[in-house]
Amino acid sequence: MQPLALLLASDAAKIPLSMLVVFVSAKLMAEACERIGQPGLVGEILAGVVIGPSVLGWMAPGDFLSALSELGAMFLLFRVGLEVKSSELLKLGGTATVVACGGVVAPFIMGWGILTLWGAPQLAAVFVGAAMVATSVGITAQVLSTKKLLHLVSTKIILAAAVIDDVLGLLVLAVVSSFAKGKVDLIGLAVTGILAVGFTIVVAKWGTRTMDKIVPQGEKLHVGEAQFAIAISFMFALALLAVYTGVAAIVGAFLAGMALAESTGPRVRDLSHGVTELLVPFFLVGIGLNVDLRALSDPGTVMLAALILGAAVVSKFIGCGLGAWPMGKTDAFRVGVGMIPRGEVGMVVAQMGLAMGVIQQNIYIVVVFMSVATTIIAPPLLKIAFKDAIMPGQSEVEEFRLG
Amino acid sequence: MQPLALLLASDAAKIPLSMLVVFVSAKLMAEACERIGQPGLVGEILAGVVIGPSVLGWMAPGDFLSALSELGAMFLLFRVGLEVKSSELLKLGGTATVVACGGVVAPFIMGWGILTLWGAPQLAAVFVGAAMVATSVGITAQVLSTKKLLHLVSTKIILAAAVIDDVLGLLVLAVVSSFAKGKVDLIGLAVTGILAVGFTIVVAKWGTRTMDKIVPQGEKLHVGEAQFAIAISFMFALALLAVYTGVAAIVGAFLAGMALAESTGPRVRDLSHGVTELLVPFFLVGIGLNVDLRALSDPGTVMLAALILGAAVVSKFIGCGLGAWPMGKTDAFRVGVGMIPRGEVGMVVAQMGLAMGVIQQNIYIVVVFMSVATTIIAPPLLKIAFKDAIMPGQSEVEEFRLG
Repeated sequence: MQPLALLLASDAAKIPLSMLVVFVSAKLMAEACERIGQPGLVGEILAGVVIGPSVLGWMAPGDFLSALSELGAMFLLFRVGLEVKSSELLKLGGTATVVACGGVVAPFIMGWGILTLWGAPQLAAVFVGAAMVATSVGITAQVLSTKKLLHLVSTKIILAAAVIDDVLGLLVLAVVSSFAKGKVDLIGLAVTGILAVGFTIVVAKWGTRTMDKIVPQGEKLHVGEAQFAIAISFMFALALLAVYTGVAAIVGAFLAGMALAESTGPRVRDLSHGVTELLVPFFLVGIGLNVDLRALSDPGTVMLAALILGAAVVSKFIGCGLGAWPMGKTDAFRVGVGMIPRGEVGMVVAQMGLAMGVIQQNIYIVVVFMSVATTIIAPPLLKIAFKDAIMPGQSEVEEFRLG
Repeated sequence: MQPLALLLASDAAKIPLSMLVVFVSAKLMAEACERIGQPGLVGEILAGVVIGPSVLGWMAPGDFLSALSELGAMFLLFRVGLEVKSSELLKLGGTATVVACGGVVAPFIMGWGILTLWGAPQLAAVFVGAAMVATSVGITAQVLSTKKLLHLVSTKIILAAAVIDDVLGLLVLAVVSSFAKGKVDLIGLAVTGILAVGFTIVVAKWGTRTMDKIVPQGEKLHVGEAQFAIAISFMFALALLAVYTGVAAIVGAFLAGMALAESTGPRVRDLSHGVTELLVPFFLVGIGLNVDLRALSDPGTVMLAALILGAAVVSKFIGCGLGAWPMGKTDAFRVGVGMIPRGEVGMVVAQMGLAMGVIQQNIYIVVVFMSVATTIIAPPLLKIAFKDAIMPGQSEVEEFRLG
């Protein structure tokens, strides 16, 4: 080829090339995992590890990919929200709060304890504890929605607890950061807490009623697919508000979906589903891209990583499982497993600690490894925990609608 | 709000904030335009002008937005391709080639002529001529697909001519650039030409047959929505190949859609439609963002801009209309109007000229203005040209399927 075409190509090829590599590798690995009886999304995360810096080095986490990944996570939670009625979630609020608290206290204490015994400075231990707190509901939600299990009580407890968990995680992070800065700003903490809790409760309680009035107005509009346009505008708006009040954008997207659950028809679901199908692989591959196995060459770091990973799994399992104990053994087991995956939040906390100089590079890597590994471990465990609930053809109407 | 929440918010808010501003402003302006009887996409482009540097200054063209815009254009052309059978397009190849050639020669000569009379250097005049050559089929395709007119012969001529046009535009650009570099690389030009023409013909001729065999295999796969995954993987692959052979990524996406037109069912169309609905506003707003009206304050530049805009409209209208003359007056009028919009290709040519130092800043602005203005002028003209073909309820089956 001649220089001009190459010159034009190098820049213009960037986007189709990254889309192709990420999407195709994700789907190939998903297919491979499904064939050996594992959930497809484990394959998509592993695809990220394979094409990432650890193995092939074809891709590195970058602005474009992480933006698509964030959008993918938002649409994923939005679509899950669409299947959940807020009234049902609110009814489970009490149990979910207990589950969430158990899932905050146990991991924090275990993370802090291990790092202290390891001889790390107090502040570093506190940061690792904080990084182990926040559940990444995206992974669990994706597994349960693919298996059409969103209608189960245990699923709803997991979703509600994960939302509350995010608010609690924010507060823990706020406290820990003010420790690191050496001054505890009590008023600031109170404002953060009130804003985050207030936002969540207001949307969960009055969101559905409001959207029931607004969405039907879409029929009076002249633009095409007006209901879809209203729905996703609302999603972006709540994601933004969530960020401003301090919780994660995906929590806002989930609440938006939930508020719309009763007012939107199958058309909006189908269209959102298309976006989700395109973007979720970017979310999953993005998780895998972040892990750099080469960093785990030092035996001490490997040992710490294994310990922290074990603690991350056990602490959520026990902390959340105990909270759900009154519901019976099966549901307690399901909830305990469903809360295991950590995700981007843990990585963000670790990154903040690194930027503040509170934790060292090797501890940062351990936290990232823990976040990725818990998301890979959880889906097969979920499959076991929900085995009795997965019946072939059990929800054919939904199957037809969600495809 | 306290510093921590703000610190976390500033970065995390970036994506939901830009999504919200772009999407909502596009839809609001689209609604306003539809209410005064204008096509919605004119409103979406104007939304880009309003929130862009010219008026409010809320947004500037950036990496994230331009990536979404490029993806949006690809999905738009992909979806249009899905509605077009390649066998029908190939039958019209002769007429389309004549139309495309007329639409290359006339604008090039007029652009070059005006700049020469204006006293610009020869090379600058040649570059402006080249920038006026390439039709942006996206705008026309969006208007005609919204109005369900993709089945008309004139629409198919426009689509086929726009694809050929893109290949010719590439060759003109290659010739012009080698002039600018002072040496004409004949072998390189020949290779570019053969690759681009070969790629287009091979996909148009054998793509459908190949995909008819591959897509049904999707049913044997274990991953969810396998046909959709195959379809968009194929789209990204052809977009990439298109870029490597020298034509635009969107031409590859269009050819991919066309190859899949006969093998994919309504499910793949619905899911792609969701992605298109989300991303097309970014494509349209992105066009508007590029125009900076403040640059048009110098009377000389305004005058030149008006002249070039007039020439851009008249030259395509006459050049392409004459090519379609044998089909009758109505179709010739439709084809002439349908080929008017220029888009990103014109801007890329102008940018190359600017980077090479061949054209000055004011001429660059004139070309960008011409590209944006032709895309805004064309849709209302299209509405007039296709008035007789738009009958209410004319294609209710399609309406149901495409929503």
